[in-house]
Amino acid sequence: MREIKKAVLAYSGGLDTSVILKWLQDTYQCEVITFTADLGQGEELEPARVKALQLGIKKKNIFIDDLREEFVRDFVFPMFRCNTVYEGEYLLGTSIARPLIAKRLIDIAKKTGADAISHGATGKGNDQVRFELGAYALMPNIKVIAPWREWDLLSREKLMAYAEKHGIPVEMKHKKGGSPYSMDANLLHISYEGRHLENPAAEAEESMWRWTVSPEKAPNKAEYIDLEFKQGDLVAINGKKMEAHELLASLNQIGGKHGIGRLDLVENRYVGMKSRGCYETPGGTILLRAHRAIESITLDREVTHLKDDLMPRYASLIYNGYWWSPERLALQSLIDHTQQTVNGWVRLKLYKGNVIVVGRDSKNDSLFDSTIATFEDDAGAYNQKDAHGFIRLNALRLRIAANRANRKG
Amino acid sequence: MREIKKAVLAYSGGLDTSVILKWLQDTYQCEVITFTADLGQGEELEPARVKALQLGIKKKNIFIDDLREEFVRDFVFPMFRCNTVYEGEYLLGTSIARPLIAKRLIDIAKKTGADAISHGATGKGNDQVRFELGAYALMPNIKVIAPWREWDLLSREKLMAYAEKHGIPVEMKHKKGGSPYSMDANLLHISYEGRHLENPAAEAEESMWRWTVSPEKAPNKAEYIDLEFKQGDLVAINGKKMEAHELLASLNQIGGKHGIGRLDLVENRYVGMKSRGCYETPGGTILLRAHRAIESITLDREVTHLKDDLMPRYASLIYNGYWWSPERLALQSLIDHTQQTVNGWVRLKLYKGNVIVVGRDSKNDSLFDSTIATFEDDAGAYNQKDAHGFIRLNALRLRIAANRANRKG
Amino acid sequence: MREIKKAVLAYSGGLDTSVILKWLQDTYQCEVITFTADLGQGEELEPARVKALQLGIKKKNIFIDDLREEFVRDFVFPMFRCNTVYEGEYLLGTSIARPLIAKRLIDIAKKTGADAISHGATGKGNDQVRFELGAYALMPNIKVIAPWREWDLLSREKLMAYAEKHGIPVEMKHKKGGSPYSMDANLLHISYEGRHLENPAAEAEESMWRWTVSPEKAPNKAEYIDLEFKQGDLVAINGKKMEAHELLASLNQIGGKHGIGRLDLVENRYVGMKSRGCYETPGGTILLRAHRAIESITLDREVTHLKDDLMPRYASLIYNGYWWSPERLALQSLIDHTQQTVNGWVRLKLYKGNVIVVGRDSKNDSLFDSTIATFEDDAGAYNQKDAHGFIRLNALRLRIAANRANRKG
Amino acid sequence: MREIKKAVLAYSGGLDTSVILKWLQDTYQCEVITFTADLGQGEELEPARVKALQLGIKKKNIFIDDLREEFVRDFVFPMFRCNTVYEGEYLLGTSIARPLIAKRLIDIAKKTGADAISHGATGKGNDQVRFELGAYALMPNIKVIAPWREWDLLSREKLMAYAEKHGIPVEMKHKKGGSPYSMDANLLHISYEGRHLENPAAEAEESMWRWTVSPEKAPNKAEYIDLEFKQGDLVAINGKKMEAHELLASLNQIGGKHGIGRLDLVENRYVGMKSRGCYETPGGTILLRAHRAIESITLDREVTHLKDDLMPRYASLIYNGYWWSPERLALQSLIDHTQQTVNGWVRLKLYKGNVIVVGRDSKNDSLFDSTIATFEDDAGAYNQKDAHGFIRLNALRLRIAANRANRKG
Repeated sequence: MREIKKAVLAYSGGLDTSVILKWLQDTYQCEVITFTADLGQGEELEPARVKALQLGIKKKNIFIDDLREEFVRDFVFPMFRCNTVYEGEYLLGTSIARPLIAKRLIDIAKKTGADAISHGATGKGNDQVRFELGAYALMPNIKVIAPWREWDLLSREKLMAYAEKHGIPVEMKHKKGGSPYSMDANLLHISYEGRHLENPAAEAEESMWRWTVSPEKAPNKAEYIDLEFKQGDLVAINGKKMEAHELLASLNQIGGKHGIGRLDLVENRYVGMKSRGCYETPGGTILLRAHRAIESITLDREVTHLKDDLMPRYASLIYNGYWWSPERLALQSLIDHTQQTVNGWVRLKLYKGNVIVVGRDSKNDSLFDSTIATFEDDAGAYNQKDAHGFIRLNALRLRIAANRANRKG
Repeated sequence: MREIKKAVLAYSGGLDTSVILKWLQDTYQCEVITFTADLGQGEELEPARVKALQLGIKKKNIFIDDLREEFVRDFVFPMFRCNTVYEGEYLLGTSIARPLIAKRLIDIAKKTGADAISHGATGKGNDQVRFELGAYALMPNIKVIAPWREWDLLSREKLMAYAEKHGIPVEMKHKKGGSPYSMDANLLHISYEGRHLENPAAEAEESMWRWTVSPEKAPNKAEYIDLEFKQGDLVAINGKKMEAHELLASLNQIGGKHGIGRLDLVENRYVGMKSRGCYETPGGTILLRAHRAIESITLDREVTHLKDDLMPRYASLIYNGYWWSPERLALQSLIDHTQQTVNGWVRLKLYKGNVIVVGRDSKNDSLFDSTIATFEDDAGAYNQKDAHGFIRLNALRLRIAANRANRKG
Repeated sequence: MREIKKAVLAYSGGLDTSVILKWLQDTYQCEVITFTADLGQGEELEPARVKALQLGIKKKNIFIDDLREEFVRDFVFPMFRCNTVYEGEYLLGTSIARPLIAKRLIDIAKKTGADAISHGATGKGNDQVRFELGAYALMPNIKVIAPWREWDLLSREKLMAYAEKHGIPVEMKHKKGGSPYSMDANLLHISYEGRHLENPAAEAEESMWRWTVSPEKAPNKAEYIDLEFKQGDLVAINGKKMEAHELLASLNQIGGKHGIGRLDLVENRYVGMKSRGCYETPGGTILLRAHRAIESITLDREVTHLKDDLMPRYASLIYNGYWWSPERLALQSLIDHTQQTVNGWVRLKLYKGNVIVVGRDSKNDSLFDSTIATFEDDAGAYNQKDAHGFIRLNALRLRIAANRANRKG
Repeated sequence: MREIKKAVLAYSGGLDTSVILKWLQDTYQCEVITFTADLGQGEELEPARVKALQLGIKKKNIFIDDLREEFVRDFVFPMFRCNTVYEGEYLLGTSIARPLIAKRLIDIAKKTGADAISHGATGKGNDQVRFELGAYALMPNIKVIAPWREWDLLSREKLMAYAEKHGIPVEMKHKKGGSPYSMDANLLHISYEGRHLENPAAEAEESMWRWTVSPEKAPNKAEYIDLEFKQGDLVAINGKKMEAHELLASLNQIGGKHGIGRLDLVENRYVGMKSRGCYETPGGTILLRAHRAIESITLDREVTHLKDDLMPRYASLIYNGYWWSPERLALQSLIDHTQQTVNGWVRLKLYKGNVIVVGRDSKNDSLFDSTIATFEDDAGAYNQKDAHGFIRLNALRLRIAANRANRKG
């Protein structure tokens, strides 16, 4: 058993992390510091403080932070600058929150002189990797306690027994078997895994979804919205400027109302297994379409293609927990560099699950030149004869190869 | 002026290619062979024969081919094996038809001893490039006549005047100004460009769309369909096996009914300009989602990521007209190699523009292993403790770098 | 302690694997099968048989295989088809042998009904990963015993003490402290790591190198050789056809004589650390240059670039031990597809460490067309005016962007 | 014929550009401005001034610039930060000089109010593309006059006749048939193309090479040099700090003496043909090896691999003339970002054509940690047991796939 003096625990106030809290105290005989973050998950945080106090945590050792603005401004928005999607579908809602939590855990560890961090992620998932890679990258000698990989409380019954034995309050819902899903929420998304979803052939139950209405229940009338971008980031909705986290919350509200952003997929985890997950990302789904649309008129073709080529790699880095790696920072420097001209607005039509781009423009940064593209008379802006040489030289290597093939018969 | 003996013309029977037909005869004094293809564009082909005869083409010089099965089986399906999308949005409906037309033009040229081909694509677009690169790759010394780059009939008025002067019948719609859009259709899609669309800020008119109803007008009740895949290709819908082109036609019909597959975007043409296009790809939109879903349980993670990394390049090759290039063939060999295990079925829910994956399974080829992924007791299938070493070694280089940063202060 | 019935040990006959042999018997009380391979490392194998017998291995449990032809034909040559180099320098001599050893270990395990394999690689290196990933990919439930990660014989003194206690003969060289390097050899290379090399600032001692003379000691007269390739593989030297392993052995002999193929570098291991290694790859160094040269006239430009773009990924796969992965196989299918036309010969001048390409040609597959490239009159093979349109259209997007920049001032 | 008022000509003072100068005056009746640059090609520039005056250029219209420092500092060094090599071999000596010339041509055009530029590159090569793409990117409406694509002086005889008719002095060497090669030189390299080299099967003549002695004629004694790097750029040789262009000139002198940097290859031109070229790049060859070596201890593994993956693309951009494109700038921002820690020194041994890395170190930025890598006791710096979990989880997907294969039999 390692010697631990002080451990900072990512603490939600729920049953699992409360058991962990107690288990840390018992097992390592160490001082425990709790850290609870508001990432926009939509839960009250004060109950976590109360519970931590009940479990014997000193007042000065309880950290409760509103990280919503930092989360959206410094994590979500930079990621969307790259139109980031993992495996063609997943918008990385859980993945992008983990590095911020890792950062705060380490900040608090440094501030309080703690020598360890702890978290409630299991040994099968991606989150353990994301927390720990982040922590190691920011404080290389930090000790990490991952109770799910260490203890023997591997069944729900054992966990509940431990809770009762140690006087940890257990809510009624847990006694009844708990949620049928493992969930995670923040301003970007809410996710569902496990239980009923473990058969990928079976449709998810309608009752599972929490943030969005079904397309069927969405309004029968479409809604138009205008999104304004500055250097690749959303800055206003329908002309109203807001802080980053307010913008995303607002998009979530609008998207949720219109049944936008549900996703049901099987993804490949970094630890080597396939896993089925369902996600609701209403605001992110809107943002992704809109960002691509504003780039479509403001970004050079080859820069667009370079970004497209690098995107899956960037997405995997984030999915796998390498936000704080030098390669992510290098890619980010390229991505951010390209966004200087990504300014303008996009008009979207939202209707029963659909996000439809209907218009886009940029006052100063459009590369769309209708005088060139027009099917009408272009007054010499483009010389069609140039296409002849363009094609002939691009065809040259193909013609030489065809001649070879002909020679060989 | 080059000397041309015989030219094979890609002939639609419409006004433009009829004028070209006449212009070729007049300008080059050459024998003209017409080639008209059924790619599922939904137009009668016999009128093209009649018109060609009227314009003096010999019976033996009129080629009318039903290429629908070849088109879907050998072009569309191979492309969908790669989940191919250009610039994050466009499903390449026009691009993928051009290499087949190029191939048939050259086949006919070889058969008839023609020394030239001709087409009606303008000097501003991608299609000229696709036709001509294909032709050169298949017959390196073929001569290419691209009238729009050569003649002076650059306005609609001049074109009509030429038609009337040479006794080419002009339909009433052309006299009235013609379609407000430049359109192209085949079994995969119908596209709209030009005129009203040349302002990318303005919404397309509802009346433009021809293949799909609007999501608003789509049925109020969702429809479920089951798609079955074999080696990456669709082989049956709702248990009914059909030929490739019948499958796609069927998906188009279902998708169109549910308002699926409309797209409005600004794309980057190979010739260097941005252009706004609207597309309806109902069947393709469904197929893309389903193919990704069946791959999600049957394809290895790293193979998936390799394909994702190569996809934009493969898409650009097709968009730019390099179907018949050696690099496309090399990529195709990789892609096809990966599809051996892509067998199984996908269940989709279609509703007012939405294509929702609700289930997927594979009898023999699933890599989804719920005994490993489960949140419940896995009976030792996965040892959570392994994650410790996995993370520690993946973190090692990050920790060494962090130590360096600390040393430097 | 896991239960092991029978273990196949990769056995060199040296001190370390002899100690492992004994330790396996003692620790797991299991039957041990030894496997010793001739990969061209230049050592007698019969002493390994004698030693195994001395250590109590049954005759039928001793496997000694000559794998030289399989090694070069099915592993080395396929790898060279991709001009494979790790981190710009390393020719992967050790990496490429490991998957073959893994394959034979599993073949023998299946044949003999063994439930485990064992090897002498340490817990810090890449070889453990390569052996074990290969074994798991070929037999998913095989047990792996990696003594260096399990036992406590972590110092040379403890190892020697164990050997003496168990009657394992210790050669004089070990008593004297053993080689100052950790070495590995096969037909492709010999490698040196550890000890004197652990300071990357210090020059390796001249006495370390075993396969090549120093450039200074190489002949004062250059030697010319002609290499013939068929479908990307070397098939003859100076007109003499030989088996694959004979060809490589011959190149090693020639290269070694001329001081070719020494390398001193710091590489990044898969387990996360940097490590300094010295390598001698005389034949491989010659082969790499020659293969690139024959490709330079027989391979299309874009295929060449596609291969160049994928090469580092392919190299990392091999370096990291993923030879038997589906993504390596997918890449290999692309690479092999491209080699159909890589036929012809290359002339090289070898002199004191230099491999100088002086000529290359291909009877049927050259894409070099001097009638086009010539600075002299080309009789119309190439129309210089075509370059105008080629440049104009390639410049179009740059000009549009420059106009934007000018507008913005 | 376009109307041209003033044209800036890239003028070497040689026969070809002198004929162009006269031809421009005659053909376009325009004012000609000459621009002659010192890029370290090793030729006197004052004769170019004298000749321009003789041909009637006004004094104020003659621009002669020493661009050596700008060339090496802002073009060569940034390119070497990426270890840039085209098609595995070529160090881009010509390619990297062209964008600087394009920039100066445009600078002078803007300063003098010229509306056109002109150059002496032929219609078959890459240089026309590089000059013109650069020019268009920097001044979108500039007119470009490429006489070799316009005039009919396509044979040497016609050129000489024109020269004599217009009183352009022709040196004796031209009368005798001129150099047997087309050459280009600057501080990075000298290149040879054409004539005797047009048969890629034939060895280049020894008499061709100008900058380096043959390895045979190089000193019999090796020379050691120490190169110091700061943020990826060479800053000192053997402890002596110099300006960028002095450093490269010094490396050229040392490398040339030791027979370093000759290259004979067949490359793929952007205009579609293969071409055989010979190059001498003594300093660049040394610099490339040294830069890789200093990166090997100061750069993170994944950053190294990211750069390796992007390098061929970056190299193609430069080769094809896209230095002034937004995608090159985006890649450069990534590359430069990575070089912050590339500080330290490299020791090289130079001997008869060989550049041998013998040592490398970095005071503050080394990531090499011998306490981890050591084969000796590491005092717990690395826990070998971690490798078990690392391998097990990396193997998981391979094992699941193998199970599938076994099931299918």
